Amino acid sequence: MGGILKINAFDTQSQAGTLNPETLRVLRRRERAFGPGSLLFYSNPIHVVRASGVWLYDPEGNAYLDAYNNVPHVGHCHPHVIEAVTRQISTLNIHTRYLADTVYDYTDALLDRFPPGLSNVSLTCAGTEAVDLAMQVAKSTTGGTGFIVTRLAYHGNNSAASSISPALGRSVPIGRDVRLAEAPDGYRNPGTDIGEYFAESVQQAIEDLSRHGTRLAGMIVDSSFSSDGVFSDPPGFLQKAVEKVQSAGGLYIADEVQPGFGRTGASMWGFERHGVAPDLVVMGKAMGNGMPIGAVVARPDTLDRYVRDIGYFNTFGGNPVCCAAALAVLQVMDREDLIGNARDVGAYLKAGIQKLSCRHEQIGDVRGSGFIIGMDVVSDRTSKAPDAREARRIMDGMRNRRVLTSAAGAAGNTLKIRPPMPFSRANADQFLEVLGEVLACR
Amino acid sequence: MGGILKINAFDTQSQAGTLNPETLRVLRRRERAFGPGSLLFYSNPIHVVRASGVWLYDPEGNAYLDAYNNVPHVGHCHPHVIEAVTRQISTLNIHTRYLADTVYDYTDALLDRFPPGLSNVSLTCAGTEAVDLAMQVAKSTTGGTGFIVTRLAYHGNNSAASSISPALGRSVPIGRDVRLAEAPDGYRNPGTDIGEYFAESVQQAIEDLSRHGTRLAGMIVDSSFSSDGVFSDPPGFLQKAVEKVQSAGGLYIADEVQPGFGRTGASMWGFERHGVAPDLVVMGKAMGNGMPIGAVVARPDTLDRYVRDIGYFNTFGGNPVCCAAALAVLQVMDREDLIGNARDVGAYLKAGIQKLSCRHEQIGDVRGSGFIIGMDVVSDRTSKAPDAREARRIMDGMRNRRVLTSAAGAAGNTLKIRPPMPFSRANADQFLEVLGEVLACR
Repeated sequence: MGGILKINAFDTQSQAGTLNPETLRVLRRRERAFGPGSLLFYSNPIHVVRASGVWLYDPEGNAYLDAYNNVPHVGHCHPHVIEAVTRQISTLNIHTRYLADTVYDYTDALLDRFPPGLSNVSLTCAGTEAVDLAMQVAKSTTGGTGFIVTRLAYHGNNSAASSISPALGRSVPIGRDVRLAEAPDGYRNPGTDIGEYFAESVQQAIEDLSRHGTRLAGMIVDSSFSSDGVFSDPPGFLQKAVEKVQSAGGLYIADEVQPGFGRTGASMWGFERHGVAPDLVVMGKAMGNGMPIGAVVARPDTLDRYVRDIGYFNTFGGNPVCCAAALAVLQVMDREDLIGNARDVGAYLKAGIQKLSCRHEQIGDVRGSGFIIGMDVVSDRTSKAPDAREARRIMDGMRNRRVLTSAAGAAGNTLKIRPPMPFSRANADQFLEVLGEVLACR
Repeated sequence: MGGILKINAFDTQSQAGTLNPETLRVLRRRERAFGPGSLLFYSNPIHVVRASGVWLYDPEGNAYLDAYNNVPHVGHCHPHVIEAVTRQISTLNIHTRYLADTVYDYTDALLDRFPPGLSNVSLTCAGTEAVDLAMQVAKSTTGGTGFIVTRLAYHGNNSAASSISPALGRSVPIGRDVRLAEAPDGYRNPGTDIGEYFAESVQQAIEDLSRHGTRLAGMIVDSSFSSDGVFSDPPGFLQKAVEKVQSAGGLYIADEVQPGFGRTGASMWGFERHGVAPDLVVMGKAMGNGMPIGAVVARPDTLDRYVRDIGYFNTFGGNPVCCAAALAVLQVMDREDLIGNARDVGAYLKAGIQKLSCRHEQIGDVRGSGFIIGMDVVSDRTSKAPDAREARRIMDGMRNRRVLTSAAGAAGNTLKIRPPMPFSRANADQFLEVLGEVLACR
């Protein structure tokens, strides 16, 4: 096992000896069921008993500030989501081969937040299933099999999605018809037009597929490039690459699992921030605040045609309980202006980290938009050599001071700061104070 | 689109004109979001507003007896499941890279119900994801890529699972390394030893894979053969085929999505009824009473090795809310002796249908165990020619009398009777009365 799964993973063989007896007891219980190879965060894993807003609590009542989890989008255990789920599970939970209003209340609310052409949706259990379905729709629509993703893309964990997820590492082969484009890394390619640079890499992938006689099905990218190490700027740089894909007959699939639902602080969807028009949009994680739900949104000429010709049914996809949770998420986002909050507090947090970088040489770069921020940790600023060991030290040091983050990027050296959307300026101040302490205690 | 998805599907072009205005309004709303190709049950679809136990209710308060849905395993909206979900979603819902007791409370309870060697589990969002993971584990363990399934198997809806799901019809190609064995159909192969017959067909598949230079990864079968048309008897007939697979170096993957959690009335798992020892077990649907959860259960030398070497993480898989629902399901099953109920009422229901077959020539055969019963509808008993049109008439006729079933099998001519587990003798009496009426009004 390697790649993205290994970053920040607890290693039971070398680290179990350092745990307190109660944590060790729960760990052993877990390992009996899941096996010792199962993935756990931090050198000192966290035993969580409850959560609320941006806080996790351990059995002793210690509070941990959550600056990492994007699944509890509107905050852990949000009362409006609790109420919606409780009401719906007490009334009706059934699959979509019956007519049930709750489901269409949600699909109407979701589709209202898309440009007019993107008017069809298929509901799934998770982003992975949405990616898998989008791949099938793209293949069926174009007659092609070739996909383009970035060098450290992560798009999901099943057979199809992991074939386009090079971030999983060398133990998981990428698909034969998959080509890798370079991440739009403005930090290690200074002075280049990053839109041109990325489009050129995509064009090479298109040509290589063509030279192998493989027809292009599409390009799928997360417009925040979060697993590549968070590359968001300048807004609009995606346009040239998308043009190249679409003019070569491929579809552009926007993976909104990370940037979607307003995380960038700029717009509801990451693709809007770049001013591009996707053919297919996939989403998951944040969608139901932890209830398993994902979706593909598309034009009728792609998705409905696929559903009519090939067929698609998902037993749990679009069940009313998960739809009720997802509808509550949209309502809370509006009521609490969470996109505005991500814009405001995200900018404040990013500026705070940039300020820390004046005093701390190991911060090579600070990137991102809204609540998806990358802090690139380097051994020195001239070589920009990734320093994964120092990134790990920072993560574990912050965890020991009860502030939670994780990492991404080529060497796992980019701290990924991605809090629940209600993260406040006071939370940001606490984050910055703890980060400053840890950076100083080298 | 064809195959299993088309059986019992509403056709909006020819049938929308017959609906009442309120149903039509909701249908149009649905079609705007999902597209007109999305799948809906019955010539006259049901608009459901609430459900409880074995009952669905429409907006006018009409009650429909549910003799088909296996997802609400312990009954729609069971109070114990509602309570468990409400409590957990109000406390904590997070992914499995933190330690959380609820998750291990469930995995302990689940693994306690397996033979000792099957002591590891990976949690997913659905049976499809479990099937996909089991395929990966089988490939990694054996070094093979070949899979054997039955001629009308259905194992899931994503790219990998649909490649081993010929029931999806000709629009979905089966995988290049997939071979089909004949269903163990004792009805249309009278006088044969069905265990020998099935094992011989599996052996031919093994030899054909070998002849193509393809190493065997495994055989995956649902021991109730529900999509093939429900073939359960005699218990034990699976043994010879499993021996052949395992002695050829392949794994036997038990798909317990249909027979699992006591549905056969004979045992907790379908494989136990056949006295066979699977290498991998997959489950879904019934597991969380409608909350999205699935699992792979296995020996540590297969699953944990895979997780250690290759890695696996599922964002929503094993979240505490779905685990709480799943634990409540096991508790209700014990408290209400639902396996005993499936045995008792299932036998009563089957005997009742057999009795009806004395008077109604269109019933060719009645098969199954517990609450998975197949009623094979034929044009005459000599030719045993499948009569899908009559099966459809029976389904729609029962639906119009507010008793819900669906169908399976080669021609969609086998009525599949698969109620929630608390289905009572009184429910069975109502079912039999309505079935008798519909059979008579030919």
